[in-house]
Parts: sequence; C-alpha cells; structure tokens
Amino acid sequence: IENKQYIRARDELLKNNEVDIAEILEEVLEKLDVESTIIVFRMLPKDVAVEVFSYLPSEDQVEIIHGITDREISYIIKELDFDDKIDVLEELPANLVDKILEKTPKEERKLINTFLNYPENSAGSLMTPDYISLQDNMTVGEALAYIKKEGMDSETVYTCYVKEKGRKLEGIVSLRSLVINDEDVKISELMGTDYVYVNVYDDQEEVSEAFKKYGFLAIPVVDKEHRLVGIITVDDILDVIEEETTEDIERMAGVMDDSDTEYLDMSVLRHVRNRLPWLFILMCSYIITGGIIGSFEATLSQVICLVAYMPMLMGTGGNSGSQSATLIIRSLALDDIDFSDIGRVIWKEFRVSLIIGIVLSTLNFIRICWLEPGGAGTGPGPGGWGYGPMIATTVCGSMLLIVIAAKIIGSVLPMVAKRIGIDPALMATPMISSLTDMVSVVTYMLLATALVL
Amino acid sequence: IENKQYIRARDELLKNNEVDIAEILEEVLEKLDVESTIIVFRMLPKDVAVEVFSYLPSEDQVEIIHGITDREISYIIKELDFDDKIDVLEELPANLVDKILEKTPKEERKLINTFLNYPENSAGSLMTPDYISLQDNMTVGEALAYIKKEGMDSETVYTCYVKEKGRKLEGIVSLRSLVINDEDVKISELMGTDYVYVNVYDDQEEVSEAFKKYGFLAIPVVDKEHRLVGIITVDDILDVIEEETTEDIERMAGVMDDSDTEYLDMSVLRHVRNRLPWLFILMCSYIITGGIIGSFEATLSQVICLVAYMPMLMGTGGNSGSQSATLIIRSLALDDIDFSDIGRVIWKEFRVSLIIGIVLSTLNFIRICWLEPGGAGTGPGPGGWGYGPMIATTVCGSMLLIVIAAKIIGSVLPMVAKRIGIDPALMATPMISSLTDMVSVVTYMLLATALVL
Repeated sequence: IENKQYIRARDELLKNNEVDIAEILEEVLEKLDVESTIIVFRMLPKDVAVEVFSYLPSEDQVEIIHGITDREISYIIKELDFDDKIDVLEELPANLVDKILEKTPKEERKLINTFLNYPENSAGSLMTPDYISLQDNMTVGEALAYIKKEGMDSETVYTCYVKEKGRKLEGIVSLRSLVINDEDVKISELMGTDYVYVNVYDDQEEVSEAFKKYGFLAIPVVDKEHRLVGIITVDDILDVIEEETTEDIERMAGVMDDSDTEYLDMSVLRHVRNRLPWLFILMCSYIITGGIIGSFEATLSQVICLVAYMPMLMGTGGNSGSQSATLIIRSLALDDIDFSDIGRVIWKEFRVSLIIGIVLSTLNFIRICWLEPGGAGTGPGPGGWGYGPMIATTVCGSMLLIVIAAKIIGSVLPMVAKRIGIDPALMATPMISSLTDMVSVVTYMLLATALVL
Repeated sequence: IENKQYIRARDELLKNNEVDIAEILEEVLEKLDVESTIIVFRMLPKDVAVEVFSYLPSEDQVEIIHGITDREISYIIKELDFDDKIDVLEELPANLVDKILEKTPKEERKLINTFLNYPENSAGSLMTPDYISLQDNMTVGEALAYIKKEGMDSETVYTCYVKEKGRKLEGIVSLRSLVINDEDVKISELMGTDYVYVNVYDDQEEVSEAFKKYGFLAIPVVDKEHRLVGIITVDDILDVIEEETTEDIERMAGVMDDSDTEYLDMSVLRHVRNRLPWLFILMCSYIITGGIIGSFEATLSQVICLVAYMPMLMGTGGNSGSQSATLIIRSLALDDIDFSDIGRVIWKEFRVSLIIGIVLSTLNFIRICWLEPGGAGTGPGPGGWGYGPMIATTVCGSMLLIVIAAKIIGSVLPMVAKRIGIDPALMATPMISSLTDMVSVVTYMLLATALVL
C-alpha cells in the first residue's frame, strides 16, 4: 500500500485501533525507511498521533522525534499521559530532554524532574501523578462533580484517593461506590481504610506481586512519610509482568540481560556480552569434570566401551536435575513453597526420582543385555561376553544413583540460593546440568572401577 | 494463636484484608487440621466468609464445603460472584453440584449449566454474565440511574456494553465517559464501536494476549452470531497469565503438566507421569549418541585422553544452544519475531556464535597448551608431548564448530516448530541439548580422527 499513496494509506490506517496503527507503523519502519514512516505519522490527526506514539517501542519513538519539528514534539509531549511522558523522556538524549523541559511550565518541570530521578524498575518510575484526590468531608455529589471536571486528565477515575491535609493517604473509594450511593452520602462513610499500598522505592516485582494477589485496578504509591505521591494502574503492570517473566526465563538459561530490547534490535556484541559470562563459568566447571575423567583413564582404557554410555548418563542426569530445578524455581517464584518446606521437597523428589530411576534403569538393563551382549554397539571394543552383564549393571546402577542425586541437587540448590539471597533462577538448567555432570561422572567411574575391573 | 482461643483469633483475623485472611486460613489448614480451620471459618461474619472463600485454592474450598452445613453452602454459593461460583462448581464432586443446583432458581440453573459446558481454558470458562448492558437510546442520566440500581451485582461497572435488540453487541462505553459527560447526552454519541472482542471458544492464551496488547480493564465475549454472552475482567487474566507462563517454563524443561496443582499438593505418581515421558525420549536419543561414540572406539582407545574433553564440549554446546533456544522461544511467545525473520536470526546467531566460539576456543587453547602439555590433566594417559598441540587444536576447533552449530540449531528449531504448529517451548533445553550433544560428538570425533591420528 505504501508506494506513495500516503493519503489512501492514512485512511486505511485510521480504520484501526491506535494500538494496531502503532504496530503497522512499526512494520513500515522496519520494512521501508524512516522517512516514509514519519510522513505517514505526520499525516495522522493530532490526537491519534499522540496515542499511536505512546504505543510505539522506545527506539522508534526516538527515531520519530528526530524526524519531526520541535513544535510537533512539544505538542506530543504535552498531550502524552504523564507516565508515558516520563518513559519517553528517559529514553531521549539529554540535550533533547533539556529542550523539551524548557518549554514545559515550571510546575510540571519540577514534577518531571522528580520522576526522572526514581531508580529504574522502582514503583516510583512506574507511577503517574494523574489521579483523582478527594477530601473525606466531600459528599458523593461533590465528588462526582469534581471527577466530571478533572476526570479527563486522570489516568484512572475508577479508584479515587482520599487525602488528609498533610497530603497523607487516608483511604480509597471506588467510582463504583460513588455511583451506587446517593448524592448526599459523605465520602468518609464510603472510603476503605484497609487499602494496600506500595512504597516509591519498592521494586516493580513487588508491585506486580501485589496486583496479582489482590486483583486491583490501581495501587497507591506512598513515600516515607506516607504521603500519596502517585498511583500505578493495572495496564502498566501487565508489561512489567511480561518483562519480569522474560528476565526470569532468560536467567534460567544462563543469559544475563538487564535491558528490555527485543532480540533483533540488540547488537551482536551486546548478545555476546549477555551470553559469554555464563558459558565461560560453566566451561570452567567442565574442566573439573574433565579432570575427574582423566584420573580414571586407567579404567577407561581397559574397558573403552564404557565411554559410549557416558553421554546418556550425563544427559539423563542433567535433564532430571533441570526438571526438578525448574519446578522448584517456579514454585518459589509463585510463593507456593518456601525454605521451611525443604524437608518435604527432598522427600518428594526422592520418591519421584526413585521410581523414575528404577524405570529407566530397568529399560536400559534389558536393552544392554539383550541387544548388545558384547558391550557398546557397533564398535570393535575390547569388551566381550564376559564384560556384558557387568557393564549393564554398572550403567544401570549409575543411572539410578544419578537420577536420584540430580533430582535432589536440582531441588535443593534453588531453595538454598533463595535462602542466602541469590536469585534462584540462576540455579537453573546450565548450573544444575554442569553440577550433575560432575556427579554423574564420579558415580559412573567409581562404580565401573569397582564392578568391571 | 490457635490453641482454642478462637474468638481472639477471629478478631485478629478481621483486621486483615480478605485476601490475607484466606492466606492465613490456608496456613492454618496446612499446619493444624481441617476441623479448626472450619471452626475459624464459620466464625467469620457471613459476608467476609464469602469473600475469603472465593480467594481460597480450590482443594481447600472442597475441604471446607465438606465441613459446613448445607445451609451455609447454599448461602456461600448464592453470594459468590458468578465466575467464582462456576470455578467452585467445576471442582466439586457431581452429587454435591446437583444438590446445590437443586436449590438455585431455575433461571440461574440454566445459566450455570451453560457455563459449565465451555471447554476448560476457553474464554467461555473465564467469563461472567454479570455485566452492565445499556441501550443506545438511553441518556447518560438514565444509564447512571440504571448502573446505580444494578451496579452492586455486576463484576465491573467501569465498562458498560451497549446491545441492540437481537442481543448483538453494538458498542462499549466507559463509566468514565458517562461520569464526565452531561446527563442528557445520548449513549449512542459516546459509545465506541471499534471495540476489541473475543469469541467464547478462543483459548485463554489469546484472551490474555489481547489484554496485554490493549491494556483493557474488561473484554466482551461474543458467540458465533456476535451476541454478547459475557465479559472477562483483567483481574481474572492476571491468574491466566501466571498459569500460562508456568506451563511454558515447565514445558521448556521437559515437564508435561496440564493441571495447575501446586508442587507439594501433587502426588508422587503424578510427578513421575509428568516427567518420565521426556526423560525417556531423551534417553533414547542418547543411545544414538552412544552408538556414534562406539563407532569411534578405535580413535578413542588410541588417544584415551580425548575422552576427558568430551563433557566440556558437549556441555558448552548444550548451554550455547539452550541460550539461543530460550531467547528465540521467548521472542516468539511475545511476537517480537516470526518465521519470516529466520534469515536475520540465523545471521545474527552466526555472528554471535563466531565471536563466542573464538573467545572460548582461544582460552581453551592457551589452557591446554600451557597447563597440560602432556594431554589430559592428572591421568597417566598415553598422550605425550607429541599429541599435546594436536589435541589442543582438535578440542578448540571442535569448540568453535560446536558453538556455531549449537546456536544455529537452537535458534532455527523453535522457529520451525512454531511454523509447523508445534509449541516452540517443547524445543527448549532438553531437546536442544540432546541434539547438540550428538552434533558435538560427531564433530569432535571426526576432527580427532583427522588431526590426531
């Protein structure tokens, strides 16, 4: 559609929801060039443009900002909701921010500066100061009239906040109860005082926990003196939950990533920096495993076919361990279990792994004894009839022990990590599998030395 | 507190938010017995009891249902919000459900039966029929009066739905715009008609995507004839997002779990059933890897110290692959990339893995040549000075190739899986690591045979 037929394109666009327009613009930016995106963007009606702008990813916002006039920038910044405004300003280069701030009224400039100073990922950086605040001596009628006047600019009108004179938060009242009750009822009779709140410096993870637990539409943010400084609404929290989940999942795979840049937008060097540290640490742990194998070379060189079973034992150990680790990490994250449950967890994992170990060992024993009576498969190894059953016993005995050990390591390690204040997600798959590999090799080699030789 | 001082306990409890009371009751149930929990529960004021009940996990709800009188059950069921009611009824045994349904009015019984028939995890199973429906010829004043009358029983009053005579959904209007506008404005002027909706049979994952994308407080659910049958509110979606994430994470670790039972509440056999299938499949794949090693026994038995480096190569390959797989799976889940990006993904992964591979290989080469000139560590292996550099070259060359292969397999496989309609999460760590192990062994052994011998 985009071959210079901009007007038709615009009319097509305008049939969509703002979120979808933003998505289409993103694609245009990716597939065509910045110029045509900016042309399309500038052709949107002003109010739609502001909405669309707020839904674009921050890199695209910066590109567009560079392509439009200062007057257009001021208009967009002025019309954005306060929390979106802060997000945009955080991403922009400092000189541009200064230019924009020059043009905003003094009052608002002060407020923006305060907000820009909250640490990233704190409740303060998520909140907006655009909420409805009422007094407890108002009547429902007065409150509704006030909301009618102020409601357009407020992030939400569905939860209103009652403040006492010192700006301290006294209680909350929902628009529902205002609408349901009669005009002359006092706010003080309706407001709830057992509200849940968060502190400005609380981490966004705690904020999203509160939303998940209580199912609120908005939560008040207070400072040290319990003064209401802003609110956070549930739509902003959905993004936070997604971000936190991504972080957890990536950590579990040994990727360190503290930005929320999309995969394709991240530079190659950045990818390397995110992934190399863990790969290096884990590689070092495998040097130890290698050393252990080295010390058993005598055993190995006598019965070389033992080597063929090594990947299976190490692999199964690693997979068993990471299953347990993943379940435990997730349960810890959801607060389903805590450190005091460690005994029950170990007992459960022990029984689970005993059954799994026995099943897998038995299957293996049958396979090795019947299908490969001479030892390891197709190879011309030195193992003859004499070794067969002994090797089968070694492999299967190791399998059982390894599965049990792996599952117990996999469940205990994340719990201990959480206890001593390390993120349990770091104890996931890569960590567990390099540890269980070590255990696997030792178990297997010791058993082999004892049984086969 | 719970040693028979129930009255004091109750007074303590009532100082808390209902969500927190539910949590305390859960703990009581876990640490003491069902009887005392029920005593405490029955001492709560009726309205609090209903709220608390709705926040309890379903197993605990069933236990409490069994401990209280039929009259108390009917009261609770009657007072619960419609969607919570459905959730409870879904968990209860059939005879109890029949008993409860007998006592509910005919009209509602019909509605309940319809809702119980929607497939689990569909939009229909999440929705509630308690919404505010308006007509487009109403004025704002009439609408507010209607909300005042009906608003108490509605799940949300903040988004109202405008239906035409055939029960078809015409548009939506927010309570905000009702409150902001004057009494005599017609609803038809205020309502938005470009609303987003879901179908009753849509999967809950699609519903939660819509919430994440548009940031709604509620979404309308329509049937095939575009008739409004219910709404889903954002607080119910937070639970869904959590559930879906858990499912994804567990799948990525090779755990098949289609229930949302907590870790400790699941039986040992259930745990075994969830974990054994993948462990077994993966074990079989390792048999192939073993076979490959077996076919290289000649090489191995000549230079036994090669074995010592095997875990490091396989482990690093597995970790590299699962890093890429995890990033790609997550990006696919968030719709950041799709199949058409496969070229760019491969090119990015190639460059990333080239750098990582060179760094890790170089470090290894230095270590092997300088620290272990004789071969593998402490072992009395047959490798002497002569083998040293050749082994180092083999190991490091393999390392580079393996990292590149692993990262490309790890990124391509999930994308292909998604393309052919398999959940990409199944292609995660265990699958990728057993595949890369195979590749690692082949690469290493071929290179070793070529270079060392």
